[in-house]
Amino acid sequence: MESLTFMPIGWVVSGRHEVRDDGWEQVESVIELDAGRFGPEALLGLEEFSHLEVIFFMHRVRPEKIHSGARRPRNNPAWPRMGIFAQRAKNRPNPIGTTVCRLRAVEGLRIRLTGLDAVVGSPVLDLKPWFRELAPRGEIRQPAWVEELMKNYWVES
Amino acid sequence: MESLTFMPIGWVVSGRHEVRDDGWEQVESVIELDAGRFGPEALLGLEEFSHLEVIFFMHRVRPEKIHSGARRPRNNPAWPRMGIFAQRAKNRPNPIGTTVCRLRAVEGLRIRLTGLDAVVGSPVLDLKPWFRELAPRGEIRQPAWVEELMKNYWVES
Repeated sequence: MESLTFMPIGWVVSGRHEVRDDGWEQVESVIELDAGRFGPEALLGLEEFSHLEVIFFMHRVRPEKIHSGARRPRNNPAWPRMGIFAQRAKNRPNPIGTTVCRLRAVEGLRIRLTGLDAVVGSPVLDLKPWFRELAPRGEIRQPAWVEELMKNYWVES
Repeated sequence: MESLTFMPIGWVVSGRHEVRDDGWEQVESVIELDAGRFGPEALLGLEEFSHLEVIFFMHRVRPEKIHSGARRPRNNPAWPRMGIFAQRAKNRPNPIGTTVCRLRAVEGLRIRLTGLDAVVGSPVLDLKPWFRELAPRGEIRQPAWVEELMKNYWVES
C-alpha cells in the first residue's frame, strides 16, 4: 500500500504553545509560508475573504496514543463509545486538523488569524478560503454529547 | 525541512470516475476503510451524524500542473488573479480536498455518501463527523466570483 508524502507549505509561528481542549476563538495565531517556495503572490487577494480553512498536522500527538477503534470522547464516562472516525479526537490515525478560522490580516508571507486550534510549530499542509457555498447542504443532525463537548471550545464560559 | 508521510485510511471505491468541475451533490460515493488496519468499531456511532467531513488526496492532479503563485480561478478571464491559497483550485501545492458530505449509511467498513467531490480511487486521509459548532463564527465575506464559480458546483442548473 502506498503512503502519501507532503511538504508543509508553512508553519504556525505564533499563537498558543500549550495543547488545550478549549477556548480557541480568542487565540491570535500567525501562519508563515515557507519563504523558500512561495512569494506573496501565493496569497494574492486572500484578504477579500473573511474566513480561511487551515489544514495542519497535529505534530504533538504521540504515536503510541493513537486510537484506531472506539473510545469515549475525552474519556468522559457520561458520553458513549464512538469510533475514532465518529469523533474529532486528535489522537487519530492521521492527526490532521481542519479548522475554519477568522482571517485578520495578510502581511507578506504572514497570515494573522483568530480561532485556529493549532499550537505553535504545527506544520501547515494547505490553506483554502472558506466559501459560503461549502456549508453543509441539508439539516445537520448530531448526538447530544457534541454540544456539551463544544460548549467551551471557542469561547470559555 | 521535514516532509510528512501518511498512510491512507481507505479509498473512494465507488462514485464518479471522471474529474469534473460541477454537479457533485447528486453523486453517490462509497468510501471503504482499509480492512487490514480497521474494524467496524472505527465507525461506531457514525450514523448518529447527518454529515461527514472527508479529507482526501486528489491523486489525479498532475505534478507539472501545480501552481504556487497566482492565477485566475478556472482560467476565467472575467475573474481576478488570485493566489493559489486564495482559491480552492485542485492544482495546488498539496492537493488535499476537504469536503462536508451527506452521510447516507454505514455498512461494515463501507460508508455511503452523497456530495463528495472526489473521484474513484482517491486515497482518504481522514474522516471526521461534522459538528454544528464548526461553522464559521462571524459574518462570511467573499469576493463576487465565488458565487459564480459555485453556481453549479453542487446542483447543475
